[in-house]
Amino acid sequence: MPSYWSQYPEIEKEIKAVTQLIENRVQVRNTEIEKAIIQLSQAGGKYLRPAFFFLFSSFGPYQKERKEQLQKIAASLEILHMATLVHDDVIDDSPLRRGNPTIQTQYGKDVAVYTGDFLFTVFFELILESMSNTPYMAINAKSMKKILVGELDQMHLYFNQKQSIRDYLRAISGKTAELFKLASQEGAYFSGADETVVRLAGRIGYHIGMTFQILDDILDYTADQKAFNKPVLEDISNGVYSLPLLFALRENPFALKPLLDKKESISSQELKEVANLVIANKGVDQAKDLARKYTQKAIDDIEKLPKSKAKKQLLQLTNHLLKRNI
Amino acid sequence: MPSYWSQYPEIEKEIKAVTQLIENRVQVRNTEIEKAIIQLSQAGGKYLRPAFFFLFSSFGPYQKERKEQLQKIAASLEILHMATLVHDDVIDDSPLRRGNPTIQTQYGKDVAVYTGDFLFTVFFELILESMSNTPYMAINAKSMKKILVGELDQMHLYFNQKQSIRDYLRAISGKTAELFKLASQEGAYFSGADETVVRLAGRIGYHIGMTFQILDDILDYTADQKAFNKPVLEDISNGVYSLPLLFALRENPFALKPLLDKKESISSQELKEVANLVIANKGVDQAKDLARKYTQKAIDDIEKLPKSKAKKQLLQLTNHLLKRNI
Repeated sequence: MPSYWSQYPEIEKEIKAVTQLIENRVQVRNTEIEKAIIQLSQAGGKYLRPAFFFLFSSFGPYQKERKEQLQKIAASLEILHMATLVHDDVIDDSPLRRGNPTIQTQYGKDVAVYTGDFLFTVFFELILESMSNTPYMAINAKSMKKILVGELDQMHLYFNQKQSIRDYLRAISGKTAELFKLASQEGAYFSGADETVVRLAGRIGYHIGMTFQILDDILDYTADQKAFNKPVLEDISNGVYSLPLLFALRENPFALKPLLDKKESISSQELKEVANLVIANKGVDQAKDLARKYTQKAIDDIEKLPKSKAKKQLLQLTNHLLKRNI
Repeated sequence: MPSYWSQYPEIEKEIKAVTQLIENRVQVRNTEIEKAIIQLSQAGGKYLRPAFFFLFSSFGPYQKERKEQLQKIAASLEILHMATLVHDDVIDDSPLRRGNPTIQTQYGKDVAVYTGDFLFTVFFELILESMSNTPYMAINAKSMKKILVGELDQMHLYFNQKQSIRDYLRAISGKTAELFKLASQEGAYFSGADETVVRLAGRIGYHIGMTFQILDDILDYTADQKAFNKPVLEDISNGVYSLPLLFALRENPFALKPLLDKKESISSQELKEVANLVIANKGVDQAKDLARKYTQKAIDDIEKLPKSKAKKQLLQLTNHLLKRNI
């Protein structure tokens, strides 16, 4: 993670402090859980949510005075994200996360379920300490619910070949974009930025989140396993049909249907066939187009922000995010 | 559940309203989760935490004016309890809860994990709506953490034959007594009872919670499966060694050790042997003695409460709780 931000030394410094804060907060008698969380927090996650939070926190006048409060909020964002990751891995029975065995693989299902729950309580503590008496307590509660409803929407669509692009977008809007939105909005709000900036921040975060998830889903089809550090195409056998596949399904349902009908029992050879069909039927291309549209929406709003170093960095980062993948 | 409270019509009425409130709050697009939660909420849980909450809420002057707020708090207590139940069942792979198949058995692990998470968010929403700007937001966060640490403590002691009675008491103090304490304390506080009553309520709730868990653990050895509606002796093969077993282990380690050394692979015949050894070595008797001590502590404090109908009901209920089991 530090290396990911090496071009942005201010962000890198803040993120190091957040990592430290997280480590201090997860101390608990049960050493397995503590080890599991620390390992996850150090395992090369990109800390994108805290990073966007800090970028937007430079638009307000109180970035320095409220240093401690802001770091707690940044940590709360990453911790909420980690909690959902840990439970997702339990649900998917994923063997790997960030190139390491998942908590479930290493310590068992019991540790994994409680680790997620424990992270929820740490999240709760952190927001209480940092934003009681602000409207953001309620906004956090709502976001948390939206994230979960997004996960539920996704689950509800498992193996559903009839789902629409709209269904997919609704699910990722909760599952992923909501937390990017919250992070960006909170950065602006808690540094004391004016209302227009807070609103823009929310929209920018949201569109970056949408882009990010779509790109992540595209990588399932384009990345090789080693570089990407996670089991490629795992989604399909778990019944999660993401955007490239949905686009390809519209183009060529007849070729894809018999393969998808095999559901969980699809072989790795057949998964490769699906991947090839998705690419051949322009699933990846169309998904990239949509990602570009979301990126453009984010960029249009970033342009409206007051001129500053952070604005430049946001533009750079948003473009970088898109290029890294495509 | 209504039948459990039929002797206490005021409580029964309140609990019906809480059940209704819970059903209204868990509406979500994902119908499986909604069904699962409603089923759990109607499946004959005793609603003890809301019940103690309402009993203590009659000690303050605002019981009627704050009806809506109080019902939300009562619901938050039951929902937090339900969230932990659902995740416990995932962890234990329990087939039954309250005589019905668990959510995991019926709908799968994914639905069960998310249902628990979803209940945490509903809990969070409810306390936000009902107690923002009171010290009880932070108290709830602390309680939630204590409950979870209690679960972790218990997990950490799995299959540990060397654990002390103190270890066990510490685990159940978090896992169970904390929420009874919170419920009782909140009942007194939010109805506007004076500080002494709030403090007494917390202590009474705590001691009743300790009693309740010990009795629950005793039932593993004394109840027959049908009457108790849950798989008896499941705990031992899951590595959870409760008070009766720990007392018996102190009396007669040599007989019990070879059986417990089999860990997960202990047979049901051997489980029965363990149960007989626990009873023969006074494990159940000694656990009952300790439960009586906790009950006595609760009763001593109930006696200090101002004279009222609720005080009489508390005494009756506490004695009833003890008798039901022993």
